[in-house]
Amino acid sequence: MNNIVLAQINTIAGDIEQNASKILECIKKAQSQNADLIIFPELVLMGYPFGDIFIRHKSIITKQIDALNKLIAETKNITALIGFAEPTEDAEKKPFYNSIAVVQNGKIINIVRKKLLPNYSEFNEYRYFEPSEDDSEIFELNSEKFGIIICEDSFNDKSFFKDECIYNKDPIEELMLKKPDTIINCSCSPSRCGKEYIKNTLFSSIAKKYKVNYIYVNKSGYADNLCFDGTSRIYDKNGKLILRAKTFEEDFILCRNYKGTINKIPIGMEKPIDIDNFKNDYLNDLDRTYKSIVYGIKEYFEKNGFNKAVLGLSGGLDSSVCAVLLTDALGKENIWGISMPSKITSDDSKNDAKILAENLGINFIEVPIANEIDITKKLLDSSFYQIKAEKYEKSTTIENLQARLRATILWSISNEHKKMLPIATSDKSEAYIGYATINGDMSGGFAPIADVTKTKLFALADFLNKNRKDKNVIPKSVLEKPPGAELKINKKTGKTVCAEEENMPYEFLDEIIWFVENKGYGFEKLIQHKFLYEKGHHISLEQKQEWINKFFKKSKFAVYKWHIIPPSVITDVKSINTVEYRQPIISNIS
Amino acid sequence: MNNIVLAQINTIAGDIEQNASKILECIKKAQSQNADLIIFPELVLMGYPFGDIFIRHKSIITKQIDALNKLIAETKNITALIGFAEPTEDAEKKPFYNSIAVVQNGKIINIVRKKLLPNYSEFNEYRYFEPSEDDSEIFELNSEKFGIIICEDSFNDKSFFKDECIYNKDPIEELMLKKPDTIINCSCSPSRCGKEYIKNTLFSSIAKKYKVNYIYVNKSGYADNLCFDGTSRIYDKNGKLILRAKTFEEDFILCRNYKGTINKIPIGMEKPIDIDNFKNDYLNDLDRTYKSIVYGIKEYFEKNGFNKAVLGLSGGLDSSVCAVLLTDALGKENIWGISMPSKITSDDSKNDAKILAENLGINFIEVPIANEIDITKKLLDSSFYQIKAEKYEKSTTIENLQARLRATILWSISNEHKKMLPIATSDKSEAYIGYATINGDMSGGFAPIADVTKTKLFALADFLNKNRKDKNVIPKSVLEKPPGAELKINKKTGKTVCAEEENMPYEFLDEIIWFVENKGYGFEKLIQHKFLYEKGHHISLEQKQEWINKFFKKSKFAVYKWHIIPPSVITDVKSINTVEYRQPIISNIS
Repeated sequence: MNNIVLAQINTIAGDIEQNASKILECIKKAQSQNADLIIFPELVLMGYPFGDIFIRHKSIITKQIDALNKLIAETKNITALIGFAEPTEDAEKKPFYNSIAVVQNGKIINIVRKKLLPNYSEFNEYRYFEPSEDDSEIFELNSEKFGIIICEDSFNDKSFFKDECIYNKDPIEELMLKKPDTIINCSCSPSRCGKEYIKNTLFSSIAKKYKVNYIYVNKSGYADNLCFDGTSRIYDKNGKLILRAKTFEEDFILCRNYKGTINKIPIGMEKPIDIDNFKNDYLNDLDRTYKSIVYGIKEYFEKNGFNKAVLGLSGGLDSSVCAVLLTDALGKENIWGISMPSKITSDDSKNDAKILAENLGINFIEVPIANEIDITKKLLDSSFYQIKAEKYEKSTTIENLQARLRATILWSISNEHKKMLPIATSDKSEAYIGYATINGDMSGGFAPIADVTKTKLFALADFLNKNRKDKNVIPKSVLEKPPGAELKINKKTGKTVCAEEENMPYEFLDEIIWFVENKGYGFEKLIQHKFLYEKGHHISLEQKQEWINKFFKKSKFAVYKWHIIPPSVITDVKSINTVEYRQPIISNIS
Repeated sequence: MNNIVLAQINTIAGDIEQNASKILECIKKAQSQNADLIIFPELVLMGYPFGDIFIRHKSIITKQIDALNKLIAETKNITALIGFAEPTEDAEKKPFYNSIAVVQNGKIINIVRKKLLPNYSEFNEYRYFEPSEDDSEIFELNSEKFGIIICEDSFNDKSFFKDECIYNKDPIEELMLKKPDTIINCSCSPSRCGKEYIKNTLFSSIAKKYKVNYIYVNKSGYADNLCFDGTSRIYDKNGKLILRAKTFEEDFILCRNYKGTINKIPIGMEKPIDIDNFKNDYLNDLDRTYKSIVYGIKEYFEKNGFNKAVLGLSGGLDSSVCAVLLTDALGKENIWGISMPSKITSDDSKNDAKILAENLGINFIEVPIANEIDITKKLLDSSFYQIKAEKYEKSTTIENLQARLRATILWSISNEHKKMLPIATSDKSEAYIGYATINGDMSGGFAPIADVTKTKLFALADFLNKNRKDKNVIPKSVLEKPPGAELKINKKTGKTVCAEEENMPYEFLDEIIWFVENKGYGFEKLIQHKFLYEKGHHISLEQKQEWINKFFKKSKFAVYKWHIIPPSVITDVKSINTVEYRQPIISNIS
């Protein structure tokens, strides 16, 4: 029996030197613990995803191979599986194979190359990699026969995926002809809503089906909108989980005799989220959503050399949830919440912002912008007067101006202070229909909740109030009042216009979003669809048509905004993030 | 002999109805002119590039097939080649083939599928398309044997590209075994610096080599940062150009008996730009650059429902060139140039802005921002005082503030008036090193010169002064003064700090950019490289190291900004635009 280390480290694209030293540190630790085998994630040496970086920074290709050679020399008495981008050195092929070097006692004893290259959603592997043509995936160690596969190679099991298989061959099935005792899967698999349930049942079913041990080693870390959860693990030959590494952090976990620790994963993550139906019940995904965003913030700031955040606190849901997430990622002493009331900001909102800041213990200051708005308004009035062009009947200028001056203040504060980033607080529901201001609440160095819909945010706020150590930090009134940007007064009521008046109920909007994203529904199918919202509310067919029409009309014009959303965390089943979904700005759809 | 129409129309991604009606109109016109054959560009019915749009808007797939069927019925007495996305209807394949339907007298007589799928630079075809497995590319018409290929299929000629071939097979070579008289190439080929020279010599050499007529039909139009130039054409069996359609516009051009009109192309476009060496001589590419950007602006505005632009006029190079390009694209009456002087804006700059506006005949107004800056500064000072975090020693806050307040005014003006977009005036050299302000000069609805380096902009400004109908619209002083944003005073000289003081000479910077983009040079290679700049100026090794280091340090931190550049026109040999080049935001390179 072998002693096996699962090393789910977090390496950075192109930073070969630091990546190699991290790998070496793990190898030495494994050697000191008399491990026989240490397994690293896919592409650990180059860092993933590395994009086009090697095209203009060619030196990293040779640096990587030099670093691999140095690591090879350090493998006395141990076998190490090291993922790397293996140059094909053939002009008629893609630049690399996506490979695992099996290194032992100072020599490479085998190289295994990925067979199935995902090229959908956030994956672009065919841009960089040549699929493997060979199948030398087997190596033996102390009479245990190991078979190696790489991430996607494990995701085409016909008895599991049935009609949804997207490749012709199943590398696992082929590998099993060689009768390994143990399958090793080296991966870079980002966390998404519902994905853990699929991975757990898939890997377990493969182990059981073929009567093999199944070892999965996944990258940890955040990179360019993707959050890799780690959560490496081992299943025994009955498909039973016998070891599991930590989630959303690096880990180095040793398995002796196929026994080990099973670390906890976020609440609800093991349970299925119904990804085939819209349920409006986000409970099983809230803890994972929370932890993935907190991890994403922490990582993005750290890897880019920042440690402080400044955000506007409006007393509304979006900024309140962002403040909690930032506090948990960066520490309360590093967060500045800025209340920037205008003339129309209600006392309740100001109060809620202040109470939230106090509850969280973050820095809080008030910067009233009423005066500045007046000055700018005058300046604009004189320029509008001189411009001979048709005006909008209903202008959004002053509404947007407030949001833009606020963002200007946040950027100024971050410019003045070291290592500080301003935060974009807009959410996914708003982004979809363009109900967020360019250079305003859309603008910032990071956008924590850009992939969380409004109804899910309400659920998340409630979850945070109940499940964090400090309870009820988000004031109850924030959860109870109708969402709105407080940028405009309704002349009839004298109150600020809420978002649902201008658009449609968020419950309805979020259900449209879900069916467009997950089922590709168009206008006709949505009209026929019975919305959950309709169960509790009677709405006329005209109303329904109006809302669905509004969605398509607004989202068509919002696409430009999708293209300039700041770095965020992809966390939902499907996302609007251009890293995943690419809708042309110029198009005509309905 | 056949009468052949080359129909280089401009269709929109996903707008099946409008695309089909444009195609039908051309077919009817061709029938009325007794044409035997009408050829449309690649993917003309779906529109290109259509990105992921079909994933969430599934209905366009059936709409497209319905539209094709209707078009088929309209082909009495004519043969039409219609590009479309042909569903593979096989879950284990990519969703589509990239196909040409050969339609004749109400029937499809052949379907030809693309073999070579580009998946580099701006192309992502493997994400959507399955490569062809068959080779039924031949059809006969009036005893003339035609062979069809699709765009990239023509770009792997081994005698032409030699070592640079990136595919194993050459579809032209295979096709020629069937001895066609004429090759038809249906394309969607965007315009880039130096590309016309390659296309012209390649197509001509293929015609000559195989003794065939060569017909090339290319899309016209702008879509998502790409400018398709059209410039469809025919070469005879000796490789001689015998017909050429218009450039950067739609065209419908009939060829009888292989004789026709040869339209002019932009000045210098036929001549080789040296794309293997940095020359600092942009002359042969300036007219094409100018026309591609003007076309891009025109198209982007029109297709998104805008017709007016508002931009800040600083009296500097960037905004002056943008003003000329916008005027030529949208008409002088539709452009508003806004001078927004602060306390440190020089009289010369104000004057230059005014003179430029007068020369162009565009609308001009002055909106002084000094007062607003003072107010905001006070507001910020009071907030900075309350924030207990380390400050930067050299703060850029007030510099950026000016740029941001200006952008706020531009966005406000565009928000107030119908069909008006604000313009981002920053250039490529600045974008590379992050010397442009987020929410400031980087922000807008369109960024005309985001892919033009500063030295090329100087050459372009000179070219515009000499070659437009109205000469010398850009004041001489704009071309003579050192570029700078006028955001900061040098305390020693009392003058505003120019950009080269803060960064490095633009000639030097642009040469670094060229070698990084085109040759993948890193620090070591750049140090060894003899810069053109060094011929005229003595610089020490320390100075050279400092500048090269500064470039890598600054460009590493600028990558976030690259990801939020507004829609632009890719026009250089290589670009920073994320549609083409994808560098991860989190990476570590040098």
